[in-house]
Amino acid sequence: MTDPADMTASAARAAIEAGRLSPAALMEACLDRIAAQEDRVRAFAWLDPALARRGAASAGDGPLSGIPIGVKDVIDTAQMPSQYGSPAWAGHRPRADAACVAAARAAGAVVIGKTVTTEFATRHPGPTANPANLAHTPGGSSSGSAAGVAAGFFPLAFGTQTAGSIVRPAAYCGVVGFKPSFGTLHRAGMKVMSESLDTIGVMARSVADCALAMAAMTGLDFGRPEAKPPRAPRLALVMAPASVEPASETLALMERAAEACRRAGATVEPVSLPEAFHAAYAAHPFVMNMESAEAIGWELDHARPLLSAVLRERMDWARAQPRGRLIEGRAAFAAARAAFPAAIEGFDAVLTPAAPGEAPRGLDWTGDPAFNALWTLLHGPCITIPAGTGPQGLPLGIQLAGRIGEDAALLGWAEWVRAALG
Amino acid sequence: MTDPADMTASAARAAIEAGRLSPAALMEACLDRIAAQEDRVRAFAWLDPALARRGAASAGDGPLSGIPIGVKDVIDTAQMPSQYGSPAWAGHRPRADAACVAAARAAGAVVIGKTVTTEFATRHPGPTANPANLAHTPGGSSSGSAAGVAAGFFPLAFGTQTAGSIVRPAAYCGVVGFKPSFGTLHRAGMKVMSESLDTIGVMARSVADCALAMAAMTGLDFGRPEAKPPRAPRLALVMAPASVEPASETLALMERAAEACRRAGATVEPVSLPEAFHAAYAAHPFVMNMESAEAIGWELDHARPLLSAVLRERMDWARAQPRGRLIEGRAAFAAARAAFPAAIEGFDAVLTPAAPGEAPRGLDWTGDPAFNALWTLLHGPCITIPAGTGPQGLPLGIQLAGRIGEDAALLGWAEWVRAALG
Repeated sequence: MTDPADMTASAARAAIEAGRLSPAALMEACLDRIAAQEDRVRAFAWLDPALARRGAASAGDGPLSGIPIGVKDVIDTAQMPSQYGSPAWAGHRPRADAACVAAARAAGAVVIGKTVTTEFATRHPGPTANPANLAHTPGGSSSGSAAGVAAGFFPLAFGTQTAGSIVRPAAYCGVVGFKPSFGTLHRAGMKVMSESLDTIGVMARSVADCALAMAAMTGLDFGRPEAKPPRAPRLALVMAPASVEPASETLALMERAAEACRRAGATVEPVSLPEAFHAAYAAHPFVMNMESAEAIGWELDHARPLLSAVLRERMDWARAQPRGRLIEGRAAFAAARAAFPAAIEGFDAVLTPAAPGEAPRGLDWTGDPAFNALWTLLHGPCITIPAGTGPQGLPLGIQLAGRIGEDAALLGWAEWVRAALG
Repeated sequence: MTDPADMTASAARAAIEAGRLSPAALMEACLDRIAAQEDRVRAFAWLDPALARRGAASAGDGPLSGIPIGVKDVIDTAQMPSQYGSPAWAGHRPRADAACVAAARAAGAVVIGKTVTTEFATRHPGPTANPANLAHTPGGSSSGSAAGVAAGFFPLAFGTQTAGSIVRPAAYCGVVGFKPSFGTLHRAGMKVMSESLDTIGVMARSVADCALAMAAMTGLDFGRPEAKPPRAPRLALVMAPASVEPASETLALMERAAEACRRAGATVEPVSLPEAFHAAYAAHPFVMNMESAEAIGWELDHARPLLSAVLRERMDWARAQPRGRLIEGRAAFAAARAAFPAAIEGFDAVLTPAAPGEAPRGLDWTGDPAFNALWTLLHGPCITIPAGTGPQGLPLGIQLAGRIGEDAALLGWAEWVRAALG
């Protein structure tokens, strides 16, 4: 049998159902792995093994019964601190679980601990390293969630995305990262920064696990990605808008992926998005930062010395912008959203890079969301699946994106592409 | 000079600027009024006169400098408890101000205290009475904010609206209630229930005060409602969809208002909204309650005995609905939003009842949002202005509603209508 710490949530659930694994044994395997590696990976913002064990021993029934889940530390948890990656919130203990955590617990999941986030899910990084190579960033802002799923600390985790904070770290760490359609998971109890963009999603070891978790928490139908679809997909290959050039390994990956999909029967055609998408993309930093500066108005005015220099600088920049930029930016987002169905008419999904390349070296920067911001602002589902490694032996991911509400279909096509990549 | 406790915020600001009034004297006048009447009105969920005095003594500069503001107790405040109208949150003290409170303080406003909300801004009422007649409800869920502005406790207050929680209580209490376009005030630090609907707004004693407060907090242009517009408005008179019949005083008010507006030069024409609006209206309870049940998942699962019977029943109902209803409901909202500009093409704004009639007798029910839910889900601005009294001598309000983003124009037309009503 696979080490339970490396199982997918679906496999662990099957083993538990079959009586071959207990929630307690699964938790113990995760805690063993954590004990062996956490001092180097540093995925956790907070962990109490005794509390995790008690959770496993009393896991409720439900489709996630006994599955350990890591919770990004911008999401509130009862019983545990929630410190938002900021000294301004050191020791903060919410009274209640966030809505998504309550939903996960109600489905039987066991919160194993809080995972490292960058400061308020913005630029300033935490201490987490990439399990594939500790000298490299795991990406961010959902750093601990991505690294923890990759390292065998937990099979499932919450992430949040405002620009590229689920998809990019998942790609860098070689796991699956799924950002559902905007608004699918309720944000009550999350430290929301950008109301127009922030989206809660999940990280896991398989596409099917994303569907399992999302369905369990929402009661909605996320399909059965592992079921073979009746036909091959029509994929729109999209490389822009992106504010940086993809690395050579990414260009090679996209060619390789397109070729593999075609060989498996897919149509893959390059699509250039019209001007409305470039305008929306250009507006992203304005909306994100101006809304974020509103969100942490208290911190900026009353806890300024506890904020990082880079955050202070970025928020001061945002506060100095003409306020009309925010309204214009939201309008640009809405225009791109309205134009998207027509822009990919005839295609089932978009195939696009998950990140510029492999995870950058060093822990002082979590990498560039250049290939993510558009898909966040479009509000549709997007997902990265592992797709081999780059020249330094670090994981690469490939991203699929779809129309608002077509989450189940996108998960199905992602699994199809994963199989085609072999 | 008017008792400062009865001044509009704009008049108080002018008096402070002219050196005729100090923030300390204004606060003292408010505290005097509170001392005289709060035991009967019960507008406050929490009040510390000493803290309010210190706030006034150290008010920052800005367009709201020295203006006392009441904060509905579903909105977080540092230094003060935030108890969301629920025993499940008794004694809760947030570390930070909500985004909107931080914005108000940054503009110089002084938080005077926390105002009574119904339980989580839902149905179960607090103890607040209507200052116009203590045997009647002030409306809800922003009960204390409406009653406090009416009673002279503070010139300005925050309210929130999911169905009719700003406009209805403002109308019942004879004050101005303004719900701006959805998303205008950031909801970080608010106890959000329905992500699709919850909107933060303001209550005041004049239309101009709403523009003053909104501009001060957002940096956006809300116009100068007191400036005479170059022409009279074209108003669409809309009476449906509404799940209850308007009372006779409301029918009489609408006729009187239409006639007064016509006399002053306006075009007023009855408009029947097409089926898409009725469908969206019918979907409102599903979206509101299903999202709310997600939002308070922790409370439902871990603090159930502390919730009111009516809330438990409503949330259980919501949890028992097929989940597709939520998706369908949001789609119905989006369809109505998309259809709205065409539905009122050629009109500047909608003229419509603010409430079924006068405030109901008794404090056990805050009245029906039948005439409010549509304007909330459409996401455009809406406002109620005082419009005389009904057969029991209680205040009536009349509502204007506009297109998303046309907040400044709507405030201008509201002031025009107010002047026309005389």
